[in-house]
Amino acid sequence: MTADPRPALFTLTTGPVNCYPEVLSALGRPVSYDYDPVFQRFYQDLSLKLQRIMGAATVPVILQGEPVLGLEAAAASLVGPGDHVLNLVSGVYGAAYGGWLRPHAASMAELRVEYDRIITPDLLRQALRDHPRTTIVALCHHDTPSGTINPLAELAEVVRDHGALLLVDSVSAYGGTRVDLDLIDMLVTGPNKCLGCPPGLSVLAISARAWDHMKANPAAPRGSILSVLDWENAWQAGAPFPFTPSIAELNGLDAALDRYAAEGPEAVWARHARTAAAMRAGVKAMGLDLWAAEEAFAAPTATAIRLPEGVDETALRDLMQRDYGVVISSGRGETFNRLVRVGHMGPTAWPMYAVVALTALHGAMSRLTARPLRLGAAIEAALAA
Amino acid sequence: MTADPRPALFTLTTGPVNCYPEVLSALGRPVSYDYDPVFQRFYQDLSLKLQRIMGAATVPVILQGEPVLGLEAAAASLVGPGDHVLNLVSGVYGAAYGGWLRPHAASMAELRVEYDRIITPDLLRQALRDHPRTTIVALCHHDTPSGTINPLAELAEVVRDHGALLLVDSVSAYGGTRVDLDLIDMLVTGPNKCLGCPPGLSVLAISARAWDHMKANPAAPRGSILSVLDWENAWQAGAPFPFTPSIAELNGLDAALDRYAAEGPEAVWARHARTAAAMRAGVKAMGLDLWAAEEAFAAPTATAIRLPEGVDETALRDLMQRDYGVVISSGRGETFNRLVRVGHMGPTAWPMYAVVALTALHGAMSRLTARPLRLGAAIEAALAA
Amino acid sequence: MTADPRPALFTLTTGPVNCYPEVLSALGRPVSYDYDPVFQRFYQDLSLKLQRIMGAATVPVILQGEPVLGLEAAAASLVGPGDHVLNLVSGVYGAAYGGWLRPHAASMAELRVEYDRIITPDLLRQALRDHPRTTIVALCHHDTPSGTINPLAELAEVVRDHGALLLVDSVSAYGGTRVDLDLIDMLVTGPNKCLGCPPGLSVLAISARAWDHMKANPAAPRGSILSVLDWENAWQAGAPFPFTPSIAELNGLDAALDRYAAEGPEAVWARHARTAAAMRAGVKAMGLDLWAAEEAFAAPTATAIRLPEGVDETALRDLMQRDYGVVISSGRGETFNRLVRVGHMGPTAWPMYAVVALTALHGAMSRLTARPLRLGAAIEAALAA
Amino acid sequence: MTADPRPALFTLTTGPVNCYPEVLSALGRPVSYDYDPVFQRFYQDLSLKLQRIMGAATVPVILQGEPVLGLEAAAASLVGPGDHVLNLVSGVYGAAYGGWLRPHAASMAELRVEYDRIITPDLLRQALRDHPRTTIVALCHHDTPSGTINPLAELAEVVRDHGALLLVDSVSAYGGTRVDLDLIDMLVTGPNKCLGCPPGLSVLAISARAWDHMKANPAAPRGSILSVLDWENAWQAGAPFPFTPSIAELNGLDAALDRYAAEGPEAVWARHARTAAAMRAGVKAMGLDLWAAEEAFAAPTATAIRLPEGVDETALRDLMQRDYGVVISSGRGETFNRLVRVGHMGPTAWPMYAVVALTALHGAMSRLTARPLRLGAAIEAALAA
Repeated sequence: MTADPRPALFTLTTGPVNCYPEVLSALGRPVSYDYDPVFQRFYQDLSLKLQRIMGAATVPVILQGEPVLGLEAAAASLVGPGDHVLNLVSGVYGAAYGGWLRPHAASMAELRVEYDRIITPDLLRQALRDHPRTTIVALCHHDTPSGTINPLAELAEVVRDHGALLLVDSVSAYGGTRVDLDLIDMLVTGPNKCLGCPPGLSVLAISARAWDHMKANPAAPRGSILSVLDWENAWQAGAPFPFTPSIAELNGLDAALDRYAAEGPEAVWARHARTAAAMRAGVKAMGLDLWAAEEAFAAPTATAIRLPEGVDETALRDLMQRDYGVVISSGRGETFNRLVRVGHMGPTAWPMYAVVALTALHGAMSRLTARPLRLGAAIEAALAA
Repeated sequence: MTADPRPALFTLTTGPVNCYPEVLSALGRPVSYDYDPVFQRFYQDLSLKLQRIMGAATVPVILQGEPVLGLEAAAASLVGPGDHVLNLVSGVYGAAYGGWLRPHAASMAELRVEYDRIITPDLLRQALRDHPRTTIVALCHHDTPSGTINPLAELAEVVRDHGALLLVDSVSAYGGTRVDLDLIDMLVTGPNKCLGCPPGLSVLAISARAWDHMKANPAAPRGSILSVLDWENAWQAGAPFPFTPSIAELNGLDAALDRYAAEGPEAVWARHARTAAAMRAGVKAMGLDLWAAEEAFAAPTATAIRLPEGVDETALRDLMQRDYGVVISSGRGETFNRLVRVGHMGPTAWPMYAVVALTALHGAMSRLTARPLRLGAAIEAALAA
Repeated sequence: MTADPRPALFTLTTGPVNCYPEVLSALGRPVSYDYDPVFQRFYQDLSLKLQRIMGAATVPVILQGEPVLGLEAAAASLVGPGDHVLNLVSGVYGAAYGGWLRPHAASMAELRVEYDRIITPDLLRQALRDHPRTTIVALCHHDTPSGTINPLAELAEVVRDHGALLLVDSVSAYGGTRVDLDLIDMLVTGPNKCLGCPPGLSVLAISARAWDHMKANPAAPRGSILSVLDWENAWQAGAPFPFTPSIAELNGLDAALDRYAAEGPEAVWARHARTAAAMRAGVKAMGLDLWAAEEAFAAPTATAIRLPEGVDETALRDLMQRDYGVVISSGRGETFNRLVRVGHMGPTAWPMYAVVALTALHGAMSRLTARPLRLGAAIEAALAA
Repeated sequence: MTADPRPALFTLTTGPVNCYPEVLSALGRPVSYDYDPVFQRFYQDLSLKLQRIMGAATVPVILQGEPVLGLEAAAASLVGPGDHVLNLVSGVYGAAYGGWLRPHAASMAELRVEYDRIITPDLLRQALRDHPRTTIVALCHHDTPSGTINPLAELAEVVRDHGALLLVDSVSAYGGTRVDLDLIDMLVTGPNKCLGCPPGLSVLAISARAWDHMKANPAAPRGSILSVLDWENAWQAGAPFPFTPSIAELNGLDAALDRYAAEGPEAVWARHARTAAAMRAGVKAMGLDLWAAEEAFAAPTATAIRLPEGVDETALRDLMQRDYGVVISSGRGETFNRLVRVGHMGPTAWPMYAVVALTALHGAMSRLTARPLRLGAAIEAALAA
């Protein structure tokens, strides 16, 4: 092994992902002054384009930092001293989010499942019965460190029936699968996953109820980078920005949205689903195991593969990069060194990238485990999926 | 006048500024996975390059949002319940910063001067005598809404003599004029002004004393976008990032630093100074007044021009953009509609851009005031400055 | 003066010119295989867009080299052993073109005027009476080394009345001023002047008569880079290319055409005309002379300024670049060291660039001649033009 | 099948190829005036860099059009009325080149082999004995439509022993395999194949003998795009260009050379060889046949695969693009519909791209032939090669 790591030929991670070429071109557009009326018009048009494409009830808020900013700001802005939060935890990210929810709330309860399983409507109904005062339910849609996806639409109905607000982290699923915003009060996502942009922005789609709730929250940040409220009217040409927006990132988002609309969201979701199906079929045919306890739990935008006994994840990923130029993601926290993850997001959400990932995975894994692994079968299964 | 504003030909603002072409090209580089070892090496090299070019005592911290993030995070991280802050206020930004300092401190005092004047060492000495318990002094180096620059080096000596820590906002001066970090404990800047990058990152140069102070601060944020401490070791290849860095912006910063070093900081500062001198000479020869009470108070990176009685700043800037394609900046807060500002930052810090600004300013101003204004004299004075 | 020349801040030449930002972005688009059906569709769409925007009778031919290729290929393809050519010479480029026309023709006559004058319809009528067998008339529309423009529309009527074919070099005028193709049989231009692209392509608009004439020409090149005929059907998706087209340049042209159409050709021509008028007014008010014997002869896309006695053009241009960052063009051949030229093409065709050029010209010229030169008057005249 | 062809995900053709990201970024650099001294310095540095990297005896000439221009210009410039040419024909391109050599020569003989075979030193020696007056030998190094590579170094020795000049078309091999220029008098290549640039330039490496021969050639073009002689001194800063060079393409070439030198030519050649070896092993293991009569004849930069009886090449390539997003090349002329070709050039010269090509080839071919084809075996063989 040489001292220098080999540059990636294929970045098949759960993000940052490869950007679309249209996005890379757009990042190099001239940078405007934020009070230039031409830029203000652009920002308004971009915000309305976002609303139209997302089908959002109000104009989405763009925050000027990658989605962890959106998530922290959403928690700080929405959750107030009168709120009782129920945090749904099916993985590392959902669990961690509790740390941002709890300090702002009157109380926080958790509904936990194993990290290879998902939150079901029945479990949620029971939890709401146990915590009847719940005013806000928080959900991590795709808990990326596990590659598992929760049944958002069904859970949203349960929350709505209860009358609570639903706050969703859909950072790594939005844009790669259908998300209906009708029953979601605050959805946090970013353009840097399935939309194929670099990290640097958050997008928040907010219901009218959630706006009212934030405005009534005496502790909601104002005059801070953590404020959502400050940005309420910033989309309007002529209205001031709370601070300077990230112009180049916005140019990239603009190109990404145009591209997404031109290809057609349904077509984009379909190839994400096909790629994930190919990956899962290939993993199983190769002789490895999915992390998800049931295949139906596995996300359409990333596939988590359980590491065989004794295989070190760092050794595996190093070999994949060194010998095949393929970069994939590790686990995080409790899933670290128990699984590896292949992302299918944006420009790499095509089945051929599953073939590439399976090929590199097979080559590296074969040197680290005695378990018999079948490459030909894996690829044939992937292509037949 | 048409409904559509005319696109800017010359963005001569106090920021966002035009980017250098090298930066625009670099923004379109492929986006790497942040845990790709090649990227981690890049991030380490970039951080060390930043330290070398800045002459910083420790490896500077890059925060992933434009400098308002850096400023808010610096205040929250450095200032703790045991601190007595003296905030030096010579303008709108200095005054506003008090709002981020005060909530974290045991107490905060202010030293205020008129917004067309500067903080002098004598005033500061007196203030420290009045507030002997002061542990932290906060200074806005170039208070952009006034276009005035405080004598940083001399003030820093006074602070050091007192034994307090010095926290400096040098967002819109750093890179356009000499800044010696030896006596500064925390300097917040960003690549989006004189370095010619888009807005999207903050840079913090931090003394060893300031690191110790932050670590001893029980209220310093952790696990938040406002945390500085979380990023202490992030520059080291192999160390984890607190969250995903803004890869494209970092690529731009890398190109900007290379460019800055290749031209030579002294040469860069010299052309900023020459451009500002040209602008001031031109403004005076034209028959207008500088905002700064004394010319020596005027910044080398922006020039604020006092509006003649009865001239509306919006009308003025609209005419300049419509008829000449020249975009300049308005005042802010107390200086709004009392002055306009021409930035000389990065790629537009060349005297010819002062000629462009003066030409457009003359053309528009002549239609809004009866005061006699001389264009030829202005340009000749600018070129002779 | 340092050893290193100073990088240009303002490239105000007669070409290569600054490119539009949209073009620079488009040059970085991914490069397709030329037999990829998606590319073939793109090439067809681009060719038809070119026809629509130009108002051409047939689909224009794109040749894969800067316009000297187009000019040499046009001469070789159109002019055959049965042709009697009349070459109209009002400048260096028109004269030089005779060298490419004569070898292919049965005979070639020339109509010559002084290089600060233009070809008039009367002169042309007389020349055609003197050379009644003329089958092809060749005209350089804007003879760039003189900055003079011939009255294309009127001359075209004279040629049509005679029955000859009209071959026009409009490389440095097309896109910056109105050109009606109805009476032109072969117009050669390129995207690298007023359309704001880099040099690398030629565009030929060809009448049905000219196609017939080329096809009947037994000496017209085939199987050569000089062949126009080989490209007749290349625009059709599915038809083969004679050789690989210059993909990146075509991407740039595509963006340039979109930009041209979006701004509106009339608006583009108007700002070229305004900029040239500003430049001429400024030159005269400064105390210098236009090269053109009458102002009406001066081109809308470049302004030639007569050098005062004893002023060396190289010294002048070196000073302008060194001290102001402004790059302009020299004369060529017979006009070398007798004039200098300022281009107003594409992105620099705005009056403020005339101010920039006049400022630098004044500054440098003042050091090289004792003639009194007035800067203020020049700029005021330019802005009033 | 939809009406719209599907955009390529993988362009694995024999050119145009994908460009390196560094090249795409460089294409968007600002465009300079060609008489700007800074550009002239750049052009000189670039030319000398090219000489150094190529190991050329004289400064290589850059012609401003893709390599067909270089090939036509080389023939027209080098071959004169006193020359007896021996054209070595092992494929379609070698044969076609005769059409550009013959018209300029006193005589032209051909040495022909079947298009799946190569020219051997013995055959060449015999041909030179048969044509002892031969003054120039022309060789197509890699006859791309056959994917076969001639033994350049050995043939060059035979030519040198004879005393003739050797003119080599190495367009699609240079940069992907070792080429020693010592015994080559004129090598024509281009940056648009293994160097990973877009098409638009030719590069000619020329021996001192060949310069003398061209200068002594009374028919060598001058004042034409076909002239090589015109460009002899153009590389020198301060010397005029015969016409405007293609600035953006030169910027791309500059970045490509830097990248090539940084990776190291030996490393670049090695991965081209490994990828071709992987492809050949995979093709054979799949159950298909190489076009080359012997595997040793197959090129390191492209692999030609013989089409099974009854398989239509258009149907095959359409399926590969539609269902896998993989674009490969067809045959040309005599090889059309008898083979397909996968390029391994520049950024796609990595074995994983052979896996991608084999996967798509298998998927499409399986639907067009009853021949049993093994995907797993193919990929395993490719990876083991």
